[in-house]
Amino acid sequence: MSERIFNFSAGPAVLPEPVIEEAREALLSLGDTGIGIMEHSHRGSAFKAVLAQTEDLCRRLAGIPDDYRVLFLQGGASSQFFMVPMNLMQSGDTADYLITGSWSKKAVAQAKRYGETHVAATSEDRNFCYIPTDTDYSSRPRYVHFTSNNTIFGTQWSDKQGAEEPQPPDDAWLICDASSDIFSRPLDIRRYGMIYAGAQKNLGPSGVTLVIIRDDLVKAAALDIPEMLQYRTHAENDSCYNTPPTFGIYVMGRVFNWIDEQGGLTEIAEQNQTKARVLYDFLDESVLFKPTADTDSRSLMNVTFVTGNADLDAKFIGLAREAGLDGLKGHRSVGGMRASMYNAFPQAGVERLVDVMREFESKHR
Amino acid sequence: MSERIFNFSAGPAVLPEPVIEEAREALLSLGDTGIGIMEHSHRGSAFKAVLAQTEDLCRRLAGIPDDYRVLFLQGGASSQFFMVPMNLMQSGDTADYLITGSWSKKAVAQAKRYGETHVAATSEDRNFCYIPTDTDYSSRPRYVHFTSNNTIFGTQWSDKQGAEEPQPPDDAWLICDASSDIFSRPLDIRRYGMIYAGAQKNLGPSGVTLVIIRDDLVKAAALDIPEMLQYRTHAENDSCYNTPPTFGIYVMGRVFNWIDEQGGLTEIAEQNQTKARVLYDFLDESVLFKPTADTDSRSLMNVTFVTGNADLDAKFIGLAREAGLDGLKGHRSVGGMRASMYNAFPQAGVERLVDVMREFESKHR
Repeated sequence: MSERIFNFSAGPAVLPEPVIEEAREALLSLGDTGIGIMEHSHRGSAFKAVLAQTEDLCRRLAGIPDDYRVLFLQGGASSQFFMVPMNLMQSGDTADYLITGSWSKKAVAQAKRYGETHVAATSEDRNFCYIPTDTDYSSRPRYVHFTSNNTIFGTQWSDKQGAEEPQPPDDAWLICDASSDIFSRPLDIRRYGMIYAGAQKNLGPSGVTLVIIRDDLVKAAALDIPEMLQYRTHAENDSCYNTPPTFGIYVMGRVFNWIDEQGGLTEIAEQNQTKARVLYDFLDESVLFKPTADTDSRSLMNVTFVTGNADLDAKFIGLAREAGLDGLKGHRSVGGMRASMYNAFPQAGVERLVDVMREFESKHR
Repeated sequence: MSERIFNFSAGPAVLPEPVIEEAREALLSLGDTGIGIMEHSHRGSAFKAVLAQTEDLCRRLAGIPDDYRVLFLQGGASSQFFMVPMNLMQSGDTADYLITGSWSKKAVAQAKRYGETHVAATSEDRNFCYIPTDTDYSSRPRYVHFTSNNTIFGTQWSDKQGAEEPQPPDDAWLICDASSDIFSRPLDIRRYGMIYAGAQKNLGPSGVTLVIIRDDLVKAAALDIPEMLQYRTHAENDSCYNTPPTFGIYVMGRVFNWIDEQGGLTEIAEQNQTKARVLYDFLDESVLFKPTADTDSRSLMNVTFVTGNADLDAKFIGLAREAGLDGLKGHRSVGGMRASMYNAFPQAGVERLVDVMREFESKHR
């Protein structure tokens, strides 16, 4: 068995070791059933219990009101990009999008098939290094869609930092793609008509999408589309209209349980702030490494930084890799480095990273 | 650790124990990477190697020609039911469907949104207990769709048994939903324009769909639909347009490797014939238990049988459960019992079942 290293991957990403240990046991036998978690019928009582417990924990941790459905779907956030407008836009509707990076752009591109789209704000003028707080909504948007955390550009909507989450005009539904920061801090679900996330950053393995959607949106959704693409279908069938991704749902449930054991989302948020502060504090003092996101827009999940010299960046990434720090190469849209530090990423890994950065800086200042 | 029992579940279903052992190791660290399989970036070299090896093994085992793409999608066969017509039917087209059970019916229902459908054969007159060999195709079907094995009704298209696989008219593409018997016997891929399967019966955990599709079908597919729903998108991006279900693909690769170690599909088919024969031979002699499928249409994967007395059926299922034989309750459409015996189901489990049936029969004849 290889020793586990520090994995800064942007996603799929590090999972809590206690969850991995539980999953290893469950692969051979889920509890005392004598049947592994991958091998249980999704219609059987053992998996039904897993599904119910996963939803219960999800509801309790996030404080999800009773008039919201919790759905476990497939196809990633990329499938929500078209399912949202396909379900929720009616003829003549306009949908407003806040564009803060590549994923928001992909989302708005899909909506154009189903109605009018309006860009109510964008930060593309400075390569998405900030969260735009000046918004210009259309007169009656059906919904307002935004991306709460921008994995690639290292920015995040955050009431605490001053980049306050969008407040759409009356009657417009707020829809949030929270793929890269869901369950990283307390959630005020009532803000949203719908909030969704691919699992593979904070919640579990890739292949499950968590969708939290209010009943009135479920009811308003289109009927003239394939049943598999209607939120209604999955809401009415407790995510078991067809065979759901059972193993992924199981792991997500164990991750929820782990978050609960940590003390819930308030405690998780404090841990994430502490971890991010270690790195941002160093970056603010560094003469070699520079953070790329504006101060009030910084992500606690993905910290992006550069030296300003691509060769030096590459040298640092290679050296960090040798020191057991993997996945630090930044996305090509930004270059440099990106340290992704989701819930399960340990504080010790951030401290190790800062040590390696400090040593590198002392040799290359 | 509980002792593993014999799991006759129709799906998700039993997986080979050596595969489960490999997966348990890989959860903590994939090879010597120090990062678990669920935690590896889908863009990194480690997962890319897993993906390439999975496809290579798939191609070699099934003898897939170079002009076919191998895709790993999400959403189950239920998503293929609408993706097939959405991609492949053009205005004015008719698609022919062979109806041999619940899944075929669901498939044809989805196609009605996209064009004309024609039922070229059906066995609904006798509750789908046989494979209809008399076909009446429309004049120029775009494609002919069929379900190679009917999980619920225990029937299977089989050249060997006399229920020969359909031969569509010239130019029509043959499209096969092989969810419950793919890789259970040698495949003649050239027959099909496309063959697909949800993983959770013979290939791995739920949440991955294997799609094998010829290039001309990929090229002919519609362009005015969401990119995520176009076969083209996934073919052009090696199933990594968005984050694929990485763990499921890994497990599928290990299942392919296990099949390879068994001697490939010819050897697997012989094992499956031997297993099924043990049970069918007993059923043919039994005075209490009766098989429900016609002799020439019997499935080697799912064996359905009844006593003719619902109370007695329930009593038997309970007794079998106590003897460590799980998942034998038949689908409500047929009633009675169903023994699903996919590739990974051990011969010892079938023998145990027959012993328990024989003992039960001696007490209730």
